[in-house]
Amino acid sequence: MDLHPGLQGPVITRTDSPRIKEASKLSRRAWRTKTRRFLVEGPQAVREALERQRELTPAAVTLPNRTSEDGAPPRPAAGAVLDVWATAEAAQRHPDLLETAAAARVRIRQVIPEVLAQLTDTVASQEIVAVVEHLDVPLGQVVNRDARLLVVLSQVRDPGNAGTALRVADAAGADAVIVTSSSVDVYNPKTVRSTAGSLFHIPVVTGVGLPEVAELARARGLQVLAADAHPPAHDLHVPWDTGLDLSARTAWVFGNEAWGLPEADRAVCDAAVAIPLYGKAESLNLATAASICIYESARNQQV
Amino acid sequence: MDLHPGLQGPVITRTDSPRIKEASKLSRRAWRTKTRRFLVEGPQAVREALERQRELTPAAVTLPNRTSEDGAPPRPAAGAVLDVWATAEAAQRHPDLLETAAAARVRIRQVIPEVLAQLTDTVASQEIVAVVEHLDVPLGQVVNRDARLLVVLSQVRDPGNAGTALRVADAAGADAVIVTSSSVDVYNPKTVRSTAGSLFHIPVVTGVGLPEVAELARARGLQVLAADAHPPAHDLHVPWDTGLDLSARTAWVFGNEAWGLPEADRAVCDAAVAIPLYGKAESLNLATAASICIYESARNQQV
Repeated sequence: MDLHPGLQGPVITRTDSPRIKEASKLSRRAWRTKTRRFLVEGPQAVREALERQRELTPAAVTLPNRTSEDGAPPRPAAGAVLDVWATAEAAQRHPDLLETAAAARVRIRQVIPEVLAQLTDTVASQEIVAVVEHLDVPLGQVVNRDARLLVVLSQVRDPGNAGTALRVADAAGADAVIVTSSSVDVYNPKTVRSTAGSLFHIPVVTGVGLPEVAELARARGLQVLAADAHPPAHDLHVPWDTGLDLSARTAWVFGNEAWGLPEADRAVCDAAVAIPLYGKAESLNLATAASICIYESARNQQV
Repeated sequence: MDLHPGLQGPVITRTDSPRIKEASKLSRRAWRTKTRRFLVEGPQAVREALERQRELTPAAVTLPNRTSEDGAPPRPAAGAVLDVWATAEAAQRHPDLLETAAAARVRIRQVIPEVLAQLTDTVASQEIVAVVEHLDVPLGQVVNRDARLLVVLSQVRDPGNAGTALRVADAAGADAVIVTSSSVDVYNPKTVRSTAGSLFHIPVVTGVGLPEVAELARARGLQVLAADAHPPAHDLHVPWDTGLDLSARTAWVFGNEAWGLPEADRAVCDAAVAIPLYGKAESLNLATAASICIYESARNQQV
C-alpha cells in the first residue's frame, strides 16, 4: 500500500490498531459522553470540522496528552479535530481537504478502507473519518439578550429528525439549537450526518431541561412558543388575529415525533402555535414542521 | 393458533403460501409496475387505504378474477384494497381497523408474524400488511383550471424524501403531486411509509416527463416555479420585490437531492425561486425545502 503524498504515514492496515479500536467505541453514546468526543464521517462534514478548527487559535488546540500545572488534564478546545483518517482514494478525490487540514494544522493519517469500515455504520462506507471534541456550549452563553431566534428540541428521539432540524436552524440564521437531555444524542453519527455540516456552524447546547431553558429565555426577553397542533393554539399563518407577533425574539420548542409536547412541557411555554393543515394530513413530520415554523419566524424577523 | 373472532380464517401459518409469495414480489419495482399493485404496511397506512376504499362504490371494486365482455380482464378500481393480512395481536390492538375493514367490505385474513415478515422490509416488523391497487391518475385530470397548487418532484431519488414531500403537499392542501418518470417509485414501501397515509388523500400522477407537465400547467393558467438556489432566482421571502406573485396559482418543481434541477429542467419553468439562507448552511434537505416553499404558497393563497 503506497503512501499518498498528502497523507501522513505509516499506512494503517491493521483493523485492530489500538487508536482505531479506541475510536470505534465512539459509536456508543455512553463512550461519547464519557470522553466528550465523537465521530465525523465523510468529506463534507470533515471539511466543515476542519474549517471550524482553522478559526481556533493554535494555543486553544491543547494536545490531549499534555497536563496542566494543577495536574488535571486540560480539555482540547470545543470542536478540536483530534484525529483524521482517510483512504488514499479520498485524498485523491478531495485535494482541497488536504489543504484545509494543513491550514488547520491537522495531520491526516492514511488507512485502508477495511480499517475505516470499523468506524462507520453507513452501508456506503465513508472514505474519511475524524474524531472531534464535543462542541456544545453552556446555556447562558446562547440564551442572551442578543438572541433573536432559538430552536429547542425536547424529547426528539429520531437522530435524522434532530439533525435535519439543526440544519434548518442554521439555514434560517437561528442563533443556537438547544437539545434537551431527554432527546437523542446530538453526537449520534446519524444526527451528525443529517446536519450536513451545520453542527459546526451553529452553537449547540445539550443536557439541559426544558423548564430551565424556557425560564432563562423568558428572563432574557424572548417569547417561548410551543409548536403544537392541539387547541388552543395560534395559527402560524394568521398570528396577528390572535395577538401573536412572530417578528418578536422567539425560542421555538419542538416536541417528540409521535406524541408531541406533553402538557407539562407546553405549560412552561408562553403560547402554542399550530401549523394550519389545509388538506387531509393529520400532522407533519417533525423536521418539516420545524422548518415551516423556523422559516416563518425568520421571514417575519427579516421584513 | 386460535382464529381471532374479527379476522378471517384459516390462519395462514406457511411462509411459502402461494398468495403470500406472490405478494412478496411487490417489494420489487418491476413487479409493482407490471401488476400495478403495491404493499401498504402498518395500522395507520392500512387504515387510510381502507378509509379510501369506503368511498368507492361496490361496483367500482371489481374482483380481479372477473373478466369483462371483450375478454380483457378489467382492472380493480384505483386504490382498491385487494388483500389484507394481520396478526391476531394487530386485531386485538386495533379493533377500529376491523370495523373500518367491514365498512369497506374488505376481509382481513389472519397470519402468524413469521408469514407477515415475508412482506415487510422494516426492522420492526409490522403487524398488518395490505396489497393495494395503484392509485395514480392521468396528468390531465389534476392539471386543470381549478388547480391552485401542484407539487412536482423531478428526479427525486430518495424514497423518504419523496414520501415526506407528498405528506407536506397533502397538509398544505395542494391539489395533486406529480412524480416524474425519472424519480423514485412512489409505491416503494419506504415512500409509502413516509407519506404517513397521505398517499391515500391526495391525487398522484406518475410516469410523466417534466416538459410535458410544465407545458400543460402553463396552458391551464398556472405559473411553474423551480425551487432552485442558484441565481438568478427570486427570493421566496421578498417575492414582490422582483415581481413574483406567490398568491397566484402555482406548480412548484423540486429537483434531485444532490444536484437540484439541471439547466434543461429549469428552462422549462417560468421562474426560479430560492429559499434565503440567513445562516451558514449551504443548502437545505429536499423535504424541508419543499415544505417551506409549499407552505409559503399556501399561506399567500389563503390570505
